[in-house]
Amino acid sequence: MSTTEPAPRIAVIGGGQLARMMAPPAVALGVPLRLLAEAEGVSAAQVIPDQMVGDYRDLATLRAVTEGCSVVTFDHEHVPTEHLRALAADGVTAHPGPEALVHAQDKIVMREAMARLGAPQPRWAVVSAETDVAEFGLPCVLKVSRGGYDGKGVWVVRTLADAAEPLAAAAETGVRLLAEELVDFRRELSALVARAPSGQAAAYPVVATLQVDGVCREVIAPAPDLEPSAATAAQELALRIAGELGVTGILAVELFETVDADGHSHVLVNELAMRPHNTGHWTQDGAVTSQFENHLRAALDLPLGSPAPRARWTVMVNILGGDDPDVGRLYDGYPHALARDPQLRVHLYGKDLRPGRKVGHVNVYGDDLDDCLERGRHAAAWFRGDLGDESE
Amino acid sequence: MSTTEPAPRIAVIGGGQLARMMAPPAVALGVPLRLLAEAEGVSAAQVIPDQMVGDYRDLATLRAVTEGCSVVTFDHEHVPTEHLRALAADGVTAHPGPEALVHAQDKIVMREAMARLGAPQPRWAVVSAETDVAEFGLPCVLKVSRGGYDGKGVWVVRTLADAAEPLAAAAETGVRLLAEELVDFRRELSALVARAPSGQAAAYPVVATLQVDGVCREVIAPAPDLEPSAATAAQELALRIAGELGVTGILAVELFETVDADGHSHVLVNELAMRPHNTGHWTQDGAVTSQFENHLRAALDLPLGSPAPRARWTVMVNILGGDDPDVGRLYDGYPHALARDPQLRVHLYGKDLRPGRKVGHVNVYGDDLDDCLERGRHAAAWFRGDLGDESE
Repeated sequence: MSTTEPAPRIAVIGGGQLARMMAPPAVALGVPLRLLAEAEGVSAAQVIPDQMVGDYRDLATLRAVTEGCSVVTFDHEHVPTEHLRALAADGVTAHPGPEALVHAQDKIVMREAMARLGAPQPRWAVVSAETDVAEFGLPCVLKVSRGGYDGKGVWVVRTLADAAEPLAAAAETGVRLLAEELVDFRRELSALVARAPSGQAAAYPVVATLQVDGVCREVIAPAPDLEPSAATAAQELALRIAGELGVTGILAVELFETVDADGHSHVLVNELAMRPHNTGHWTQDGAVTSQFENHLRAALDLPLGSPAPRARWTVMVNILGGDDPDVGRLYDGYPHALARDPQLRVHLYGKDLRPGRKVGHVNVYGDDLDDCLERGRHAAAWFRGDLGDESE
Repeated sequence: MSTTEPAPRIAVIGGGQLARMMAPPAVALGVPLRLLAEAEGVSAAQVIPDQMVGDYRDLATLRAVTEGCSVVTFDHEHVPTEHLRALAADGVTAHPGPEALVHAQDKIVMREAMARLGAPQPRWAVVSAETDVAEFGLPCVLKVSRGGYDGKGVWVVRTLADAAEPLAAAAETGVRLLAEELVDFRRELSALVARAPSGQAAAYPVVATLQVDGVCREVIAPAPDLEPSAATAAQELALRIAGELGVTGILAVELFETVDADGHSHVLVNELAMRPHNTGHWTQDGAVTSQFENHLRAALDLPLGSPAPRARWTVMVNILGGDDPDVGRLYDGYPHALARDPQLRVHLYGKDLRPGRKVGHVNVYGDDLDDCLERGRHAAAWFRGDLGDESE
């Protein structure tokens, strides 16, 4: 009696919630994952049996975790590209590969690539001294080219004095800085696409995202009141970037939406992310195929699943730790949250509540956007502990 | 800094695909599972990190796996009820509990309970000799009261000579036999409900199931052309059985649909199952809340999620190993199956293909039932290896 052709094993680097949320579609697809976690018991390590603990910056560790795997993918974008080239020489293909990934690691490389592609983007320049910032013009945004995330490594500079801290920090750490114009945007959008090594690609509906202090707070899919031509242009832009940069897996193109004098919408590229992205969490319950499943399918060069929405509206609201460090409400939040809304979809990350930390999200879908927003915000606030007195 | 209230850990006995498919909703809910697997590397053991291998018939093993768990639930119905009573004395509550579970373990106990509840059921009797069978009347169906599954332990008896084998087998093993009338049914239906210890219950739409040789082959949700009054009656019957027997978790009531002289539908109780059930796999992609999630919510006495369908039709088709033992097509089936149908939802169990063995299923949903059936059957046959020459 023969056995099934074994499914290829996918190595996943990084034990955060993005890796955790790859586990359910991997179970369904029958595809084994092998995890490299940064520590025991982290979010993804709670749910993926085949795991080791180690440092993703260490090539020997990467070689150990990818042994017997034909492909490797990521929970985050920080694996050194030279290590990915070394793994490729060993026969382990990274998705995304190093040539693509560098554009998500280095904002200056990304800006140069967007310029080359003619993609619309804010005016920008590399800066290293106060005179560069003065020449660029104020107000502006200063960003570290590498290592920033969730609003860290980003400064809004309104006076030259504001530039002193980022310039000093950059000089000390050797990281390069870029200045970007402070865009007067209507809102932030995200265009998410999946792309397989075959070149097949699938574009999810363009969503509106609400960022607070640089952290994604809410996503509405599709973006309300977005001109169809602007939505199509954003999707085409994301598909073109994915193709030109050779991205495999999920690419999130974070965009500013601006409105011109005639009232028409335009988009400017803000950031690129090459992994499942917070602005795509709505797809778990709101799309035919989730971003996590399509990321895995792309890594295996399988045909991608439909990115079509399953409801008129899907709203994602992140659950962030609240200001009260003593609230222990995350699991305790279930009885009320689930009883109030039998349609609510909850995704928790197995993390302790800490102020400002992303510990989960809720998805709500339906025909009425205001209703979805109210339900999603209520549930997230309840889990966060903000509604204790009011609702009990 | 405080930590989150830890979520209660659920012990799951049995490492088959039903336990495996509890893993994805457990990931989303942030609820840890602890698995007792019958052997290393079985279906659920591939995807649940916290596991031990052992014999579910051994109380010491059950005590070890449930240590630190407040609740225990099951992949199958074979755990001895006396062990569940012993666990309850230790403070570990089984869902379903032993008083309910016995009705899924013993068909005679179940038939007696249905009679007590006045639930419609086939005429039946306990038989132990040829004269009992003759007195009951032929043709009939003989069933072992305990231990049968997927058509095993069931005999259609048309002559007394047909009864010899089951009677001899029963006498030898000491298991009791019952005779049931051979029902002239239109089709088989299944009414699936979830019930929490609080008494809250949720009824899924009644589905039509196609059984071949005692094995579930296809499910259509909702059952096509079922009189609304009959559908409601079946749901009410399942809710009443769940309540009267004190079931917690998922209860599947397998039904025969009969048609009277006036053309009206009626239902008769065929079997009870107290765990996620093959006739509920469609809920993974076709309902707001899957049977697996509601089973876990019930075990934790959390409010149940909506059982409402998300599409007009959802079709589930099982993938069974085909006749050719050398076909190694399961993973190899992906490129064609996924490319042909970007909406296809595939669930594989991490099992080797063997003739007749359930190794996975596909779900297809949409507005057109014939289209869903064609897509689901094609995909399942393709994975099974039946379409190789025709479709390549």
